Amino acid sequence: MVAAPVSIDTLCINSIRMLAVDAVNKSNSGHPGLPMGCAPMGYALWDKFLRHNPKNPKWFNRDRFVLSAGHGCMLLYALLHLTGYDSVTIEDIKEFRQWGARTPGHPETFETPGVEVTAGPLGAGISNAVGLAIAESHLAAKFNKPDTTIVDHFTYVIMGDGCNQEGVASEACSLAGHLKLGKLIALYDDNQITIDGRTDVSFTEDVLKRYESYGWHIQHVAEGNTDVNAIAKAIEKAKAVTDKPSIIKVTTTIGYGSPNKSDTAGVHGAPLGEEEASLTRKELDWSYGPFEVPEEAYNQYRQAIDRGAKLEKEWNQVLAEYRTKYSKESAEFERMLRGELPDGWEKDLPTYNPDDKGLATRKHSQICLGALGPNLPELIGGSADLTHSNYTDIKGESGSFQSNSRDKRYLHFGVREHAMAAILNGIAYHNSGLIPYGGTFLVFADYMRGSMRLSALSELGVIYVLTHDSIGVGEDGPTHQPIETIPSLRAMPNMLVFRPGDGNETSGAYKLAIANRNRPSSLCLSRQAMANQANSSIDKVALGGYILEDSEGAPDLILIGTGSELDLCVQAQKQLQQEGHKVRVVSMPCVELFEEQTDSYKNEVLPPTIRKRIVVEAAETFGWHKYIGLDGDSVTMHRFGASAPGGTCMEKFGFTVENVVAKSRGVLGID
Amino acid sequence: MVAAPVSIDTLCINSIRMLAVDAVNKSNSGHPGLPMGCAPMGYALWDKFLRHNPKNPKWFNRDRFVLSAGHGCMLLYALLHLTGYDSVTIEDIKEFRQWGARTPGHPETFETPGVEVTAGPLGAGISNAVGLAIAESHLAAKFNKPDTTIVDHFTYVIMGDGCNQEGVASEACSLAGHLKLGKLIALYDDNQITIDGRTDVSFTEDVLKRYESYGWHIQHVAEGNTDVNAIAKAIEKAKAVTDKPSIIKVTTTIGYGSPNKSDTAGVHGAPLGEEEASLTRKELDWSYGPFEVPEEAYNQYRQAIDRGAKLEKEWNQVLAEYRTKYSKESAEFERMLRGELPDGWEKDLPTYNPDDKGLATRKHSQICLGALGPNLPELIGGSADLTHSNYTDIKGESGSFQSNSRDKRYLHFGVREHAMAAILNGIAYHNSGLIPYGGTFLVFADYMRGSMRLSALSELGVIYVLTHDSIGVGEDGPTHQPIETIPSLRAMPNMLVFRPGDGNETSGAYKLAIANRNRPSSLCLSRQAMANQANSSIDKVALGGYILEDSEGAPDLILIGTGSELDLCVQAQKQLQQEGHKVRVVSMPCVELFEEQTDSYKNEVLPPTIRKRIVVEAAETFGWHKYIGLDGDSVTMHRFGASAPGGTCMEKFGFTVENVVAKSRGVLGID
Repeated sequence: MVAAPVSIDTLCINSIRMLAVDAVNKSNSGHPGLPMGCAPMGYALWDKFLRHNPKNPKWFNRDRFVLSAGHGCMLLYALLHLTGYDSVTIEDIKEFRQWGARTPGHPETFETPGVEVTAGPLGAGISNAVGLAIAESHLAAKFNKPDTTIVDHFTYVIMGDGCNQEGVASEACSLAGHLKLGKLIALYDDNQITIDGRTDVSFTEDVLKRYESYGWHIQHVAEGNTDVNAIAKAIEKAKAVTDKPSIIKVTTTIGYGSPNKSDTAGVHGAPLGEEEASLTRKELDWSYGPFEVPEEAYNQYRQAIDRGAKLEKEWNQVLAEYRTKYSKESAEFERMLRGELPDGWEKDLPTYNPDDKGLATRKHSQICLGALGPNLPELIGGSADLTHSNYTDIKGESGSFQSNSRDKRYLHFGVREHAMAAILNGIAYHNSGLIPYGGTFLVFADYMRGSMRLSALSELGVIYVLTHDSIGVGEDGPTHQPIETIPSLRAMPNMLVFRPGDGNETSGAYKLAIANRNRPSSLCLSRQAMANQANSSIDKVALGGYILEDSEGAPDLILIGTGSELDLCVQAQKQLQQEGHKVRVVSMPCVELFEEQTDSYKNEVLPPTIRKRIVVEAAETFGWHKYIGLDGDSVTMHRFGASAPGGTCMEKFGFTVENVVAKSRGVLGID
Repeated sequence: MVAAPVSIDTLCINSIRMLAVDAVNKSNSGHPGLPMGCAPMGYALWDKFLRHNPKNPKWFNRDRFVLSAGHGCMLLYALLHLTGYDSVTIEDIKEFRQWGARTPGHPETFETPGVEVTAGPLGAGISNAVGLAIAESHLAAKFNKPDTTIVDHFTYVIMGDGCNQEGVASEACSLAGHLKLGKLIALYDDNQITIDGRTDVSFTEDVLKRYESYGWHIQHVAEGNTDVNAIAKAIEKAKAVTDKPSIIKVTTTIGYGSPNKSDTAGVHGAPLGEEEASLTRKELDWSYGPFEVPEEAYNQYRQAIDRGAKLEKEWNQVLAEYRTKYSKESAEFERMLRGELPDGWEKDLPTYNPDDKGLATRKHSQICLGALGPNLPELIGGSADLTHSNYTDIKGESGSFQSNSRDKRYLHFGVREHAMAAILNGIAYHNSGLIPYGGTFLVFADYMRGSMRLSALSELGVIYVLTHDSIGVGEDGPTHQPIETIPSLRAMPNMLVFRPGDGNETSGAYKLAIANRNRPSSLCLSRQAMANQANSSIDKVALGGYILEDSEGAPDLILIGTGSELDLCVQAQKQLQQEGHKVRVVSMPCVELFEEQTDSYKNEVLPPTIRKRIVVEAAETFGWHKYIGLDGDSVTMHRFGASAPGGTCMEKFGFTVENVVAKSRGVLGID
């Protein structure tokens, strides 16, 4: 019997499958099942559709590819390697999941050029993709001209059953349908297997019908293991539908090719082992050794290199034309792509003195957004349906980003906090200079914490506008009053948590949040008004903590305050000074930035020998002992709040000048 | 003109509307719009369908009513008051949203008898309702007999647009459809208004079609403001559909009756004001004063009192029969309803000594579940699709809770962490003795934190089985390695966070988690094995922290360890003792319980004068300065992790005996 000649499609597809099998076997850890099942759709998409430049992964106008089912990262690494990215050599693949490798266990933007979003936490990737598509369509509406198109790419996603079960994806895809994001195309790997076994133990909904209810265009490819043409035709058709996002359900077999493990949960997240790898080679008629890719496959895939160079070159020519015809727009566009902020962007941030009327910091925040808006056209954001509580609107602007007004930059996320955060991440991942922000009540940071963590991990300069930051919320009661939320955010690496204590500090927080393009900021803002301080300033916020009021000579006691409780410290200090005590007030609007100061500065603000210290913050004490140590005290929260007017709550829970004074006396030993 | 006689329906409906208007006006805070729009469905449901006993809100076999749109709590308070609950008098309504009132700003189970779930955070209530329906159907399958039905009630929900946008609700409702929970009936208040304005700015999906895709029965009532009969017929029809949950979209006008504010976002969350209240009275032809309810309305509503007494009496008779015929089952059933644990439930929890093979604490957890399972029939739980990683199965049991096997107690939640937590809360809210537990990776606590917070706030004894608790996870990398998750949970009031350091401590953690029926527990468990300690024990875990190894005489240094790092402390202590240093090792499996001990005990374990202290835990240091103060040190994490084998991660990040010894020398000043 003479073997039939193997088609180039089959060679290319099996190259992915066997790289995944070999890499997972070698590392003895990983998820071979998805790459084996999704290899045909991966090949079809990357070989026939994806417009990218392997030798310049950052080329702006590339199509974005998101592997939302991030555990199947060997699919992505194989595709990056096969199409010629320098970031993933065959040696990198052999180092899969090892210390320092560019091929970590889940795709991470900060490790591997060519990876568009950090994935693994399910549902996040598809939701980021909605953000990528929003960014593309906004920039297209803003910069493209009738005769010159400089922003024009698709966002493709491969997602699995897990992504489709996660609520964040439901939220984001509902919004994507509403927004008619026609250039978002998701391939849904319908393999009917999750870790617990067959999906029929928990997941029997009609997924396509659900997407149809969101307003998506839906298709189904039944023979996803083999029918590359059908996949390609479906993608072609999806591209032609420009007024709806598209989902293509591609029915596959997890671990396709493995005679004993395919179509089982066993191939989801465990190596095949040597023996089953051999049997798989036989089954797939694969005569190549471990990590060996047939030359023909490389030749086919690596046509992407020339194609990509050509695409980028053509685009550069268009950009050059654009530069000539539309110099103002191109200057802005190219500045944004370079990641530079415009000159004087911060010049209109307001400053205050104690005579200025005390406002809520959420109100100061609104004033900052209004001051920044005209100077920072790249600022884009909104609220999870709390615009008039968060005050996230930009003064003087009307309308919002909708399917017929994509040039607008205000985003109505709906009551979808988690999707909001994931979409903000997606806008940041687009890496085109846009500065995304989003608002909700601070307590609902809990709803989106999964994506806030990804902002921090992936070094995305997302700005979270989190209002109603304490029991000062009042009547809405304990479900709406954050107690532990601020400490829980401070515990997160790479997250800047600001709790400004007046107008100047709010301006300072914005200045830093905007300037920090590689780490997210959480702005914790009050519902209620507070006084403006005499010695606060925009610039001091950069120190994280600083001496706001001081005693003559070394203090006996240091009061550390934040946010709405800062003024309690100032008032208590006045009273204690009158009684002859030497008291310093330290304002600490950003613990993380204070920690980054020199030891000598920190010791100047909080001298190690002065251990009589009290922190005053209407939140859980948790974390503050770093500054109050074993000898200090606190006026903080130790339980959930209560429903009553905000002022009553503050008083009942001890946030009064009297109580701060009383605690101070206790620490000073004069009671 | 002679006015047409006002129907009793209209009187009853407008009684709700005006109580809401008056209460919100008086408190000058709250959400009148929903109660005004939902009054007809509230009246129809409570007057014609709801089987409850106002004079015994805890009667077991009552229908459960969940106001998922909790901000509309005046609807619920009005209904509780009108139908005769002692918990909500007219005086309570006048005290709406005031300090100490039984009518807080959102419904809270712990404040107001008759409130079935704490609501406010959107999407939570409908998801809790799925848990309530699971509890009902499980207990029905378990206890009902062909000739005797003792468990038989519906779970009704009123939810709004906000709930339908939240991902947690999508997750839970998809699972409800899969599970064919026929006795779950949701009324969807389709009023087209959210805080940001009309829903068409962000929410234009076809909600009913989505629910149909989940496998729900769907209906639409177009005239929800007026057509009580149509609402009643739809509920009747929904009750008749026993193999699917039902959703009835009821189209209403928010703030119905207010001539100038109805159908606007302005009536969503702000008082009408005196003037508009007067105009509303006129519009509704309402001649009664503030807080005045017509006698006829009271008379109609309060028929619920006699009906309820009769229902309970009948049920008590059935129960008495059941007790006679099925004494064993009734003993178990009634014990569960009393909230008592069975004698000897903990007797099979295993103990270990150092010769026993060291296992991962997730494995110890599985052994505990296997030991508890036969003795605790009320234990019910599962995993968010990580059964074989979390080891959440109960040894010896097969099958899971499905539509055709509702007596089974293993729950496949699917990849739906947030819904899992909300459903576990719902099972706990059912208040029938069931002990709910659920597993996922610790890092994905972030996905369900919103509902974990509600477990803590509402004093629900939910057990979270959170495995893969550190960088010891290894290859899956930073997206899967918790760093800040443990501190973030410790910051939460009323949450017990256990991180057991061996087999005995895992048994101890389970003993306490089971025993604590009024607060949730988070069990943080390792992926990797660790040694069993000589001096650990089940009972010592109850102290939260205790001396595991000690020096002769007062120690110079105290090492505090948890979980997989506890043995590092023990090994380091051995080495340091050999070098002549006096070192104590404190095991701290539960910080919260340690805090609850007497000062004298705490000072015995951590003498205030011994300030050379080092904490060793593979998590963010955040929070530990409470014990290490300003003079101690730590072997902890300060950044996100990395993808590499777990042992490599531990070593690279400094979790080695050598490093603990080196840090100890530093603190002891002998370097």
